[in-house]
Amino acid sequence: MSFPIVGVVGGGQLARMMAPAAIALGVQLRVLATDPGDSAARVVRDVVLGSHTDLDALRRFAGGCDVVTFDHEHVPAKHLRGLQADGVVLRPAPHALVHAQDKAVMRERLAALGVPCPRWRLVTTVGEATDFVAETGGPVVLKTARGGYDGKGVLVWSGGAGPGDDAASWFGAAVARGEALLAEERVPFTRELAVLVARSPHGQAAVWPVVETVQVDGICREVYAPAPGLSDDHATAAQRIALDIAGALEVTGVLAVEMFDTPEGVLVNELAMRPHNSGHWSIDGAVTSQFEQHLRAVLDLPLGSPRALAPHAVMVNILGGDYPDLYPAYRHVLARDPGIKVHVYGKDVKPGRKIGHVTAVGSDPDDLLQRARHAAGYLRGEITE
Amino acid sequence: MSFPIVGVVGGGQLARMMAPAAIALGVQLRVLATDPGDSAARVVRDVVLGSHTDLDALRRFAGGCDVVTFDHEHVPAKHLRGLQADGVVLRPAPHALVHAQDKAVMRERLAALGVPCPRWRLVTTVGEATDFVAETGGPVVLKTARGGYDGKGVLVWSGGAGPGDDAASWFGAAVARGEALLAEERVPFTRELAVLVARSPHGQAAVWPVVETVQVDGICREVYAPAPGLSDDHATAAQRIALDIAGALEVTGVLAVEMFDTPEGVLVNELAMRPHNSGHWSIDGAVTSQFEQHLRAVLDLPLGSPRALAPHAVMVNILGGDYPDLYPAYRHVLARDPGIKVHVYGKDVKPGRKIGHVTAVGSDPDDLLQRARHAAGYLRGEITE
Repeated sequence: MSFPIVGVVGGGQLARMMAPAAIALGVQLRVLATDPGDSAARVVRDVVLGSHTDLDALRRFAGGCDVVTFDHEHVPAKHLRGLQADGVVLRPAPHALVHAQDKAVMRERLAALGVPCPRWRLVTTVGEATDFVAETGGPVVLKTARGGYDGKGVLVWSGGAGPGDDAASWFGAAVARGEALLAEERVPFTRELAVLVARSPHGQAAVWPVVETVQVDGICREVYAPAPGLSDDHATAAQRIALDIAGALEVTGVLAVEMFDTPEGVLVNELAMRPHNSGHWSIDGAVTSQFEQHLRAVLDLPLGSPRALAPHAVMVNILGGDYPDLYPAYRHVLARDPGIKVHVYGKDVKPGRKIGHVTAVGSDPDDLLQRARHAAGYLRGEITE
Repeated sequence: MSFPIVGVVGGGQLARMMAPAAIALGVQLRVLATDPGDSAARVVRDVVLGSHTDLDALRRFAGGCDVVTFDHEHVPAKHLRGLQADGVVLRPAPHALVHAQDKAVMRERLAALGVPCPRWRLVTTVGEATDFVAETGGPVVLKTARGGYDGKGVLVWSGGAGPGDDAASWFGAAVARGEALLAEERVPFTRELAVLVARSPHGQAAVWPVVETVQVDGICREVYAPAPGLSDDHATAAQRIALDIAGALEVTGVLAVEMFDTPEGVLVNELAMRPHNSGHWSIDGAVTSQFEQHLRAVLDLPLGSPRALAPHAVMVNILGGDYPDLYPAYRHVLARDPGIKVHVYGKDVKPGRKIGHVTAVGSDPDDLLQRARHAAGYLRGEITE
């Protein structure tokens, strides 16, 4: 086998950030993008235009790829089976990926594995959900099993939905799709953590330091690597959970396990099977970035060291703000802080949209946080000096 | 101004390694390559095919670029003037670049600036060169003023050329071109050093730590960053020389100053005005790589910190060897050392050709050197275990 071709379904910023890793590794990247202006399609040499919901486009794209992987979880299961039937090598494979596609399947599987999770129930009626609210003694989180992302498809609910309420319409839509909704207790967590692990088909796994993530309105805003003040035992337990999940589910590639931290230990919140926002710090802060590691893992190449390059890294997302043209603010930010790493995704600026991130790496976490927040805030237009 | 387009003349590995930096910065790269299989043309989205010796191709390529820079020094001066007349922004500008294109012009200018150089003379006949041998008391180095690279265009000569000798034919060819040859004393140096500096049009400059380079048969083989055992005074003096040259010559972009280290101080050997083999370590070993810095500098963006991420970095070039297919050896190297960074240029393997490099970053320089040498040697087929 000579240097292989990795196909990535989806042209977003995750596919884009695989490109630098692929260039260094000597691996060829092919991207299936819906639009030539997609973040990855702007920078990758080999782009196939088409939709991930179109099996013909997927087939046209996958032919000639040695391995196909994903920028998101939204390829329909029946299309994944179709590609598999053609002999396309999908990593992660559909039997693993389904746990990142369907939250109900994920909860059932993690429960069977004995992984600590919030209390949960599949509910199909307002009545069933109301019972669950009564049992857990507080508001619950209603989630659509499929298709949620960045806070979409998630509703905090205290019961009592009447006609016209969000919950009522959600139940109606779920029934129409033949799905149950997932109801989960709202965990009184102290903070959110994430563990990223990579696993290859021959079973090698590597885990990065546990990070703390800060979400606002369901969107990741900040990541601290490592999670401040986490004891070694606590960190090791969280890493062990992520490694166990990766092994049990036969994940290939990067697995992100989002967790709630509580005084009694961690509870698993969500899974993603691809590079993840909580791992962007690794581009500038680790020997092997999550993007390089994902490519190594899906190619069954030996994994690289996930070791951090410095004691601390802080990542802050750049959300779209008031500047349609980011460049003047960008110049200012680079001038103010020669040590900050600014990553821009080549996306049009829309308010609240993730359009880039900044990372600061060093030894003083307070200094790093202040600098990264300033840069991201300035680029959003929230700070003017 | 929104995010700009940087054109790079030449599709070699230097242009290729600018691509990851451009992707992160959000800057669009356009490459003029002679062949779709060129190292950079394999990975960059926006490729124009054509020769750097064809003014029409250069014009077609440069139209629409905000700035044009270079992967090599081989664009004819008259074409550079033609592009300038069209209003193309060339960085470095031709009046700076000529010092990297023509060694005779470089020597005359550095002498005028008082920069320490080996003794040198422009010679047009065997007789003049013989006189210079007698004056310097030993063999001299004859160089063609233009077009030399990686040991080509350089001849160590002790005098006495007769018909059929290399020196005689070189003089004949130089006379035919209307050029003199450059004769330089062969300096009894203790080692070779290189200083990389970046300078932007508004005059900001940044300098990386001084490195030691090891050349074999005129080709760079190893780089140690920082140069071992160099005193602070010695390092500062070398950096000062490079910064002074960059300022005096009005360089924009990266300037590499190759130096001989002698007991009396450093002497300048060669200049290159582009990212340089002696700076490849900075991709994995510095806050800002030479490729990112070159893009920042030619765009007149604020420069990034050139600070090293760890106490030591060692870079070893991978030269083509016995494996036409590098991939099996590559798997082995990645498995043996999870911390090594292997960079592959996507070039066909030919014996002795630079096809990649490896970098090891850490605190124990002996360990780093052993590991980097092993990986590069294994990939060349010199080591089999």
